[in-house]
Amino acid sequence: MINGERTTSRPLRWGMVGGGRTGQVGYKHRTGALRDGTYQLVAGAFDLDADRGRDFGVNLGVAEDRCYTTYQDLIAGETGREDGVDVVSVATPNFTHFEITKALLNAGIHVICEKPLFFTVAECEEVAALAAEKGLIVGVTYGFTGHPLVHQMAAMVAKGMLGDIRIVDMQYTHGFNAGDDDSADAVKWRTNPATAGATFVLGDIGTHLYYLSEVVLPHMQIEKLLCDRKAFIPSRAPLEDHATVLMHYDNGARGRLWVSSVNAGNMGSQRYRFVGSKASIEWSDSHPDQLIYQVQGEPERIMHHGMPYLEAESLAVDRMGALHTEGLGDSWSNIYLWIAQAIDAKTRGDEDFLKTHHYPGIKAGTEGVRWLENCVRSADAGAAWVAYE
Amino acid sequence: MINGERTTSRPLRWGMVGGGRTGQVGYKHRTGALRDGTYQLVAGAFDLDADRGRDFGVNLGVAEDRCYTTYQDLIAGETGREDGVDVVSVATPNFTHFEITKALLNAGIHVICEKPLFFTVAECEEVAALAAEKGLIVGVTYGFTGHPLVHQMAAMVAKGMLGDIRIVDMQYTHGFNAGDDDSADAVKWRTNPATAGATFVLGDIGTHLYYLSEVVLPHMQIEKLLCDRKAFIPSRAPLEDHATVLMHYDNGARGRLWVSSVNAGNMGSQRYRFVGSKASIEWSDSHPDQLIYQVQGEPERIMHHGMPYLEAESLAVDRMGALHTEGLGDSWSNIYLWIAQAIDAKTRGDEDFLKTHHYPGIKAGTEGVRWLENCVRSADAGAAWVAYE
Amino acid sequence: MINGERTTSRPLRWGMVGGGRTGQVGYKHRTGALRDGTYQLVAGAFDLDADRGRDFGVNLGVAEDRCYTTYQDLIAGETGREDGVDVVSVATPNFTHFEITKALLNAGIHVICEKPLFFTVAECEEVAALAAEKGLIVGVTYGFTGHPLVHQMAAMVAKGMLGDIRIVDMQYTHGFNAGDDDSADAVKWRTNPATAGATFVLGDIGTHLYYLSEVVLPHMQIEKLLCDRKAFIPSRAPLEDHATVLMHYDNGARGRLWVSSVNAGNMGSQRYRFVGSKASIEWSDSHPDQLIYQVQGEPERIMHHGMPYLEAESLAVDRMGALHTEGLGDSWSNIYLWIAQAIDAKTRGDEDFLKTHHYPGIKAGTEGVRWLENCVRSADAGAAWVAYE
Amino acid sequence: MINGERTTSRPLRWGMVGGGRTGQVGYKHRTGALRDGTYQLVAGAFDLDADRGRDFGVNLGVAEDRCYTTYQDLIAGETGREDGVDVVSVATPNFTHFEITKALLNAGIHVICEKPLFFTVAECEEVAALAAEKGLIVGVTYGFTGHPLVHQMAAMVAKGMLGDIRIVDMQYTHGFNAGDDDSADAVKWRTNPATAGATFVLGDIGTHLYYLSEVVLPHMQIEKLLCDRKAFIPSRAPLEDHATVLMHYDNGARGRLWVSSVNAGNMGSQRYRFVGSKASIEWSDSHPDQLIYQVQGEPERIMHHGMPYLEAESLAVDRMGALHTEGLGDSWSNIYLWIAQAIDAKTRGDEDFLKTHHYPGIKAGTEGVRWLENCVRSADAGAAWVAYE
Repeated sequence: MINGERTTSRPLRWGMVGGGRTGQVGYKHRTGALRDGTYQLVAGAFDLDADRGRDFGVNLGVAEDRCYTTYQDLIAGETGREDGVDVVSVATPNFTHFEITKALLNAGIHVICEKPLFFTVAECEEVAALAAEKGLIVGVTYGFTGHPLVHQMAAMVAKGMLGDIRIVDMQYTHGFNAGDDDSADAVKWRTNPATAGATFVLGDIGTHLYYLSEVVLPHMQIEKLLCDRKAFIPSRAPLEDHATVLMHYDNGARGRLWVSSVNAGNMGSQRYRFVGSKASIEWSDSHPDQLIYQVQGEPERIMHHGMPYLEAESLAVDRMGALHTEGLGDSWSNIYLWIAQAIDAKTRGDEDFLKTHHYPGIKAGTEGVRWLENCVRSADAGAAWVAYE
Repeated sequence: MINGERTTSRPLRWGMVGGGRTGQVGYKHRTGALRDGTYQLVAGAFDLDADRGRDFGVNLGVAEDRCYTTYQDLIAGETGREDGVDVVSVATPNFTHFEITKALLNAGIHVICEKPLFFTVAECEEVAALAAEKGLIVGVTYGFTGHPLVHQMAAMVAKGMLGDIRIVDMQYTHGFNAGDDDSADAVKWRTNPATAGATFVLGDIGTHLYYLSEVVLPHMQIEKLLCDRKAFIPSRAPLEDHATVLMHYDNGARGRLWVSSVNAGNMGSQRYRFVGSKASIEWSDSHPDQLIYQVQGEPERIMHHGMPYLEAESLAVDRMGALHTEGLGDSWSNIYLWIAQAIDAKTRGDEDFLKTHHYPGIKAGTEGVRWLENCVRSADAGAAWVAYE
Repeated sequence: MINGERTTSRPLRWGMVGGGRTGQVGYKHRTGALRDGTYQLVAGAFDLDADRGRDFGVNLGVAEDRCYTTYQDLIAGETGREDGVDVVSVATPNFTHFEITKALLNAGIHVICEKPLFFTVAECEEVAALAAEKGLIVGVTYGFTGHPLVHQMAAMVAKGMLGDIRIVDMQYTHGFNAGDDDSADAVKWRTNPATAGATFVLGDIGTHLYYLSEVVLPHMQIEKLLCDRKAFIPSRAPLEDHATVLMHYDNGARGRLWVSSVNAGNMGSQRYRFVGSKASIEWSDSHPDQLIYQVQGEPERIMHHGMPYLEAESLAVDRMGALHTEGLGDSWSNIYLWIAQAIDAKTRGDEDFLKTHHYPGIKAGTEGVRWLENCVRSADAGAAWVAYE
Repeated sequence: MINGERTTSRPLRWGMVGGGRTGQVGYKHRTGALRDGTYQLVAGAFDLDADRGRDFGVNLGVAEDRCYTTYQDLIAGETGREDGVDVVSVATPNFTHFEITKALLNAGIHVICEKPLFFTVAECEEVAALAAEKGLIVGVTYGFTGHPLVHQMAAMVAKGMLGDIRIVDMQYTHGFNAGDDDSADAVKWRTNPATAGATFVLGDIGTHLYYLSEVVLPHMQIEKLLCDRKAFIPSRAPLEDHATVLMHYDNGARGRLWVSSVNAGNMGSQRYRFVGSKASIEWSDSHPDQLIYQVQGEPERIMHHGMPYLEAESLAVDRMGALHTEGLGDSWSNIYLWIAQAIDAKTRGDEDFLKTHHYPGIKAGTEGVRWLENCVRSADAGAAWVAYE
């Protein structure tokens, strides 16, 4: 159980690019990072509006002279200091991730980046090579996978409690874009290929599904895939506000995945179901403290987070204890902690630790982009089956 | 509200073929038919084991001399009587439906048949022509569509409360065949193409999903379809114990449907979600008294059966009233009632009534088989998209 | 599993007093009785409005000359016939139960009566003596206790799966009388002491709770009790639209019970929780197919009706089988069946069968009235503790 | 919406007494306080075991010389420093709260104390006077009342959306003490009157219920009360592991409350239901993102946190935004923030701000103890009604 005791050598000096006052996601980074004393927010280029960004940064406790306007300024300012940032989080629109990440790495700064990581696998591989060369970590904020019961699922699958995995059923949908008003900033850039990349909801929310499935089912690979996508609001085309993806895995399993932002009125429906030959498990982030475990022919079981009957892997990352609800912020704080541990190990040169340490890094980010590339290739071929590449 | 007052000219003299002591479904027919005084069970060929069938029939209150061994005996015996059966229900394995139905119609007897109706659309059309020629009704026991909230959904869609329908999401899965023991009679014939036809779960449970979607969305037609099916228990091949079907409708809507009998541990997951441009509705037969109604941007609403705020179409077919749970038997009793009303109208020559009367008849049965044919065509082409024919 | 085969010597000739077209509860009796061929509706005094009652009865299939206006007429008419009724159900306002039941018994007719049975325990005992003298059965329609999972609960308690029972928590509330318009017939008589007796919701819905607890916990007796009742709509006083009852049992257990008809907006909250030293069980008639079973320190279990892991006592009274929802009608049909079996045994003189046969009879009706008397005595003493008498 | 921008003059220098490595509740304080930069943990007497406490504190980032063994040492050490603590949280067993709080206040240090605050109202009043004299704040960690939907409930009641409040139904139960092994430290002191005070579960969890009801129903006062308590594990007597409390309010409303730690297998059942003449609301901390809102005669509504249709009071204290689950830690962080704002205002001398500022302070703590005193007085009188004093 996590109780706030530090597990790293020292607090990391942390900066942010993006995540300013008007952004959706900045607070999730901060509430994730700023507990347990693992990170200290010391710098930021929060906002392209310099005054607003400075005012905001100061309110967050950042020194005024370390509130920068652009990421270039931040890099210039911080690399000139003894106490410059160790790591910077990138919470900007997708199209900027690649160039900002490269610039940070080239400046010797670790990076934590929003998903989808970059536009192409080629970009991911270029960054992976750069990070390796520089001895730096790139973390990716797949924020839901810090929940303790996600790791309960992974442990149950690994122990064979489900038998052979047969069916993977995943869904992340909401209805906030059911209407056709895309004028809000956060929607505008997400629905424009120039700023969002080749996908809207597949990248925006589908990558969460895919990464979580990798965490739970690390032994399975997609062999072929079919993606049927559509923009119910025509102005969003060629990007999609709805997509179904079918997947065939190398072990014969079948997957089905649904992402949508036009599922009118639907709240909280990130749902995962993993069906094996013996049993199934089901989890939703809208009730993250409960894991449904169904053995065919036995009463359905509901497992609660923090209970002694859970696997050690789950209990190790629990923060609140049984009876007490954990939220998305708790999950993010685990993600941020694991990335900090990776940075710490990298800094200490502890490659052994990194070999087995679980955290969403450049590999996870790359695989998310690869999955998107395959989805788009299938969709653009008329929702045809494509071999997974 | 239905209160048991008779709405037909007289009780129908009713017989059964199949549905004997060891069958799964016979009691559902009887509990559906034998309330409200609409039907009187007077004859049956319940069982190919003559003694057991006779003993069983007598226990049901059927006169011993009207407990027959074969459907041929039943037809012979009943057509020779003044008080012979008006209508016979066919609750036998799939491969016998066609020949029994034809024989009954040829003998001037109305038919109520289990789904999937027959093996081919051609057979359905042959029977439709025969029934028309003879002036007889063929009903199909899509037993779930008698629930009052199914008709609430249809009324809400018809009134435009959902806006344009965009997404259809349907699921009927269970895990009773997760293991590989198919020796039980009810499983044996369902997994053998000779007795089940070209499908297992698609026909056995998927046709329920499809028909219910026709009831709720009568204005929509499938344009093309893709069916990916698999037998996780190899001995079931070429039939399937799992399938996903994607559908494109003529109004641009997208459909996804899942059927499976290897969804280990899953109970009660017949689920329907219809998403429109304004709102969505969701219903499950495992909680048939609740309809979830979600208008984007408003609190989620849960509608309860029997409440005055519902549409007249739903209240008209309610039996127990608000607060009091209705079960599958109540739904079946509505289906049986509607078929009785059709038979009564046909007998009276009231074709006007039949023009607007809702009941699952030969058309509904035919469309179910057509859908199966399209699914199989797609699946056999390698889960390819096929134009709906 | 119940499949409709007759378990009694012959169908009972059945009549009704009350339960006419405008009543709330008549159809529940009929849909409960008129399946399985156990009862045949042959007579009725459905309505004090003679024409309406006759029209209604004929629509139910009753011969016109056996549609009576008063219960006295019915008794007179039926006792004069060879094929007169065996048993009559009384579905009239409370204040008439006693006189009608006595008259029927005196005429040699078995009785099935609505709850609360009579106004006083003295009346109950008088009728019990009369029924014993006449060799007749009095059944009471505690309609919810026919659900299979109620009997699963009783079996689990009997087997010691809960350990020593410590806490009994029961609730039956709705909000249909939250407003002050009591002009509807069904409300008017229920809120008038002259027609309802000494209680409103305690008798109307609380007796269901109490009887179900007797079924599940037959080994426990109340030692003392406190009832705090109130009429939130003042015109209902001295009757109550809300009450809380605390109970101390002879084994040291504590009970709490809530009944209300002003629980605004509440649907389907008949809820039972039985807590033992080892485990708890919880059941609600709004989801009657699920039983929650919680062993301290283990994952919560949800048991589904009809599944092989249930106790034999539950499976024996299941009608639809697993996956298929049972409703209140199915529960009523079990109650009616068990009463028919009691009548049949009584008629056959099989007192051995009656010694162990479970059904809600005169004893259950008496205990319900006794509980009400104790509640009223406590409430009238200022919600004081009273020794249970 | 809270996004981490500082709303106080400067971060508070914060210390803890108790809440060490083996405690249950220490991390809840820290995860609540240590986000948003509102508090900085600079000192602590975490543990009576000096070495363990120092090791723990250092791991939390506290300087070694500010890791004290006793609260007296902490006060001595911190009051001697320029940068001494502004505020200290007391997370120790109940019997120490009073003396530690007084000592801190006397040393000029603000206090945040666990509930139940002290043993008697007299002690509360003494401390209130002392705090007033010293110009210091005493906050109480009623940790659940920081949830945004608690404030939605309060706003809805204040706006009259429920009409007149009639029924208050509250429950906080779990089963962790269903067995009789009380040897764990956290249980041992809680079940001993010398260390826990006059109650076990009433104080430990019941005070949460009572305070939340005060937040939602500030206009209502209890007039009389009855408390029936029991120790199902006899060694816990005279303290209770189960209690039911009935309450009559000055507006005629009726309350019922259940607390228990022997509700075997029950998880997450902190539940609140407030019933008015027009509508009811229901909330549980096990699904804190959903508020059930039921208007009699309309479909049930489920409100989700963070949605624009909520009241401003709720949206103002939301942290994660709609779709994203908030947990108990988020609620605690609001409580800690509000107390910080009170301390900041007190320090600035802004009494106007304090007049309307919502936070659980000495008044809330006092009322909780008053409620316990009344409960115990009733229970000790044989579960008799007592006038609320």
